[in-house]
Parts: sequence; C-alpha cells; structure tokens
Amino acid sequence: MASGAEIIAVDWGTTNRRAYAVARDGTVIDQVSDGQGVLAVESGGFPAAVADLRARLGSGAMLLAGMIGSNRGWVEAPYRSCPAGLDELVGGLKRIAESDAAIVPGLSFAGDDSVDVMRGEEIQLLGAVAAGLVSPNAPACHPGTHAKWVKLEGGRIVAFRTVMTGEMFALLKKHSIIGSQLQAEIAPGPSFAAGVRRSLERCELTAELFQIRARGLIGGLSDEEASAYASGLLIGADIRTGLSFVGRGGAVALIGDPALTALYAAALRETRRPCFEVDGEAAFLAGIKALTEIMR
Amino acid sequence: MASGAEIIAVDWGTTNRRAYAVARDGTVIDQVSDGQGVLAVESGGFPAAVADLRARLGSGAMLLAGMIGSNRGWVEAPYRSCPAGLDELVGGLKRIAESDAAIVPGLSFAGDDSVDVMRGEEIQLLGAVAAGLVSPNAPACHPGTHAKWVKLEGGRIVAFRTVMTGEMFALLKKHSIIGSQLQAEIAPGPSFAAGVRRSLERCELTAELFQIRARGLIGGLSDEEASAYASGLLIGADIRTGLSFVGRGGAVALIGDPALTALYAAALRETRRPCFEVDGEAAFLAGIKALTEIMR
Repeated sequence: MASGAEIIAVDWGTTNRRAYAVARDGTVIDQVSDGQGVLAVESGGFPAAVADLRARLGSGAMLLAGMIGSNRGWVEAPYRSCPAGLDELVGGLKRIAESDAAIVPGLSFAGDDSVDVMRGEEIQLLGAVAAGLVSPNAPACHPGTHAKWVKLEGGRIVAFRTVMTGEMFALLKKHSIIGSQLQAEIAPGPSFAAGVRRSLERCELTAELFQIRARGLIGGLSDEEASAYASGLLIGADIRTGLSFVGRGGAVALIGDPALTALYAAALRETRRPCFEVDGEAAFLAGIKALTEIMR
Repeated sequence: MASGAEIIAVDWGTTNRRAYAVARDGTVIDQVSDGQGVLAVESGGFPAAVADLRARLGSGAMLLAGMIGSNRGWVEAPYRSCPAGLDELVGGLKRIAESDAAIVPGLSFAGDDSVDVMRGEEIQLLGAVAAGLVSPNAPACHPGTHAKWVKLEGGRIVAFRTVMTGEMFALLKKHSIIGSQLQAEIAPGPSFAAGVRRSLERCELTAELFQIRARGLIGGLSDEEASAYASGLLIGADIRTGLSFVGRGGAVALIGDPALTALYAAALRETRRPCFEVDGEAAFLAGIKALTEIMR
C-alpha cells in the first residue's frame, strides 16, 4: 500500500483500467494496470472492485474517469455538453461521499451533421493542453477503440467526432472470415501505407476488406501484409474523416497509446498533414493534476 | 427416404445447408434444410454427414455446391477462372467416385483493380440464366454474407466483385458496441432509406456506425430505427460499389434469399436503377437441372 498519496487517479475503461497513487507534488508513487475494465466487473461489484484498488494503492481521495461513469459503470456521471474545459469537468463531478470518490463526467456534442459522446479521452486531451504539451487551439486526435477527432478553442473542447476504428479492427481480427489473416503484428511499412492511400482514394471498406480474403487465397498476400493493409485501410478512413472534421490549420496533436499514435503519424505522412505525438499516460496524469488544482 | 430421386443436390454453405432429392423431370421429391454448414462439421466428419443426408434423401448421384468444395469443406474443388459458364463448371467437377458424388467448383476472377472468389452463387446465377429468368447479358447481384456483383456476357460469368455486407452486419449485431441496438427486424422504411442515401453520399462507414451509438444515447434513436439505418448504410455502400462495378445498362437481377433481395430492391429504388428479384432456391434448382443435362 502506498501511504501519503493525495489522489488515487483511475483511468477505468471498457476492457482495462489503470490506477495511480499520486503524491501532492504530482509524483506517481505506485500504480496498478489490469484487465478489470467495467465489462469485467459484475453487476453490483464496483464497491468491492474500488475497495480492492484502495487496498493496493492507499486511502487518498479517488478520482475516476472513463466508462466507470457510464450506464455500464459504477455510478453514472451525466455527460457535460461542449464547449467544455477543465472547469466544466469539475462542475460535473459525480461525488460519492461514502467512498471519498468522484467520477469525472464524459462530454457530449451536438453538431449540424453529427452528435457524439466521449468518456475518458477528455482528461487526456485537456491534460495535454494544461501541461503545455498541446496548443489551446490545436486540432487533436485520440486513437483507440473509438478514435476521437477534436477541435480545441481556448483550451476547451468545442466539437468532436468519433470513428470506431479500433473496435472494427478487433471485430475483424476476432470474429471475421479474414481474422486468421490479421493476427500478425502491424508494421507501418509499404502494405500499411498502401491501405492508407487506398482509403484516402475513397474505396468502399466492406468491398476492400474482402479483397484481403481473395488476395490471400489467390493473390499471394501474406498475413503480415494483410494485417498491415487492413490496419492502413481503417486508419486511412479514420484520418480522412478526421481531417475533414477538424479542417485546415495546425499540426494534429496525436494523444494516446504510443503504439497507436505511431501508426496514425505514419498514416498522416501520406496526407502531408503535420502532426506530433503526446503520450496518453502523461496527458492523463497532467489532466488529473490540473483537475485537483481546480478542486482545491 | 425418397426413392426414385435421380440427383441429391446440396447447397452446402458456411453456416447452413439445403439438400434436395430431385426426380429426373426436375420435381423436388424431398428436402432437408438445417444448420449443418461446413463449419458445424468436425474435421473428418464429412463422410458421416454425407451418409446422413443419403439416409434422409435416398441413393441418387450427389451434386454438391458451395463451401463444401473449399479448403474448409469435404474435398477441395479448385476454382475455375472467369469467364466461365455451365460447361466450365461441369469441366471442373471434383468427382468422388466411392460416394457417387461430385462437387461443383467455385470461380475466381482477376481484374485490373481486384481479384475475387465465389463458391455456390455461380450455380444460382447461371441457373437463373439457363431457366430464362435472367438475360444472358444482365448485370446481376447475389446478396448475402458476401454479396456478389456479377457481369454476365453470353450466359457466362465474366467478372465479379464481392462486398462483405452480410458478414459485417452480423459482426456488428453479435459483437459490437451497437449490437444491442441492431436486434430489431429490418424494415425497408424511412430509416433504411436514410441509411442508403447517407452511404450513396459517400459517408465513412466506421464514423457513421458510431453515430448510431451516439444517437441512441443522446439523440433519441430507437432500436428499430437503428437496425434499419445500419442495414441501409451497409447495403447503400454495397450497391454503390456494385453499380460502379457492373456499369450502366440494364435492370439489375437480384438473385437470392427473398428477404435480402427485397432490401436490395428497396435500396436500388434510391438510385433509380431498375431491378427485379429472382428466388435463389428456384435458381439453384434450375442450375442443378442444367448441369445434370450437360453431364448426361
């Protein structure tokens, strides 16, 4: 157990969770990372799951973000509507007094052409801005299961758009007819770039994915080429959507898992749009630090 | 057991099979339809599965089409390359003398922009032509797990293109975050038409699918609307690909499961391309009849 932690910060997603014991000066004293995402916790099991984290990380006030605040999580923290910054997140905290815990709300967006929701990415995005890693007006992208493309203005999230890129790749890999061809590690080489370019040319995804099967059967496509090409197709479709959404101007801040931001950076090279990568864990911790400073 | 059958014809797919005892005059004497597709038969289990069919349908010569001839089936019947008609199918029959059976080969296609494979649809397509239900030069579409768009010339298949529409819908329905919203029966009403039109406008599928989740959470989208809209999006993307592939000219022959051809007909109405529906079972039986006449 880590004594002396001021905050136990938890990034509690659908399939994974990461929890950090953070000292008052921002130092991470201890951490836990496991597969106990909200879908792995049975109904009514959250108090026990939270107590387990406390036993491992100490008695500090708990700040939880992500799907833990959804209708599949512990206690629902209603969405705050955009535009929203750190102040709005603090204003929307769902406090659970008996557990000395608070859940960060997600964000919703209603535009002319789309509506959208996010839970968890907002901390990383606003944390990256608070830490000076990202400009307050940058176009940003958070790759992942449900990739988010975000317009920032004055350090607040004003609009965003989701593309279910990571989930689609996982569905294809686990359950589809081309799944056996998608098990190889994805390298951002020529096959990946070819997939990106094919999507930028506006191919039809459901048609192009079957090409992977046909080329595997009669075209000599290797499994390494297949997984990279499929990933390139999906990420290419993602950045085409995202760049159209965030519009021109400024390097794109890629915030998240370094393995994913590297693939998105490789894909963006095919468009010549400048970009830079920000580690999602550092951004999350910066967001937690900024939130606690406002809460004091 | 149906005695007097000349042919036991089997449409043996990935997840289902349909078998018919057919008299010399083409009359269907008896039939079996069950979920014993090739994936449900364990390794080495095909002789027993075939014997089971014989016990139910009689001792006639057996003609099998579909995934039964793939590398996941009983005995592999190598693809015949396009252009191919009924003569080429007979030329490519994989005979299994000890079982008095023959497996119809699938077709492969290599074009400038795509390669492709089919197994099973070729019998229905060429059978529909042989029976005079479809013109020998018609553009045709066989909706399904892997929808096929086909160019016919002189009664032969000269080129085709696959879109994995049915499989994608099944993946989303069974395994995705929007799965619970896709359980309702699909009606080709306003939500379906809106999905078709959205795809015809070249939306990005992975972005638009997440709109179903967001609109379900904060936009008031009902599950009936969600499933019809998702189906419309996927079929819209399919017909955009398919119409571009088959080109202008002629009503599209929609051959297959009547529930699916009805949805494709509804989708095609949004494009004003004329079309007509042909029952896939009748087309399959016509194809078997035409094959056996050549084999005599």
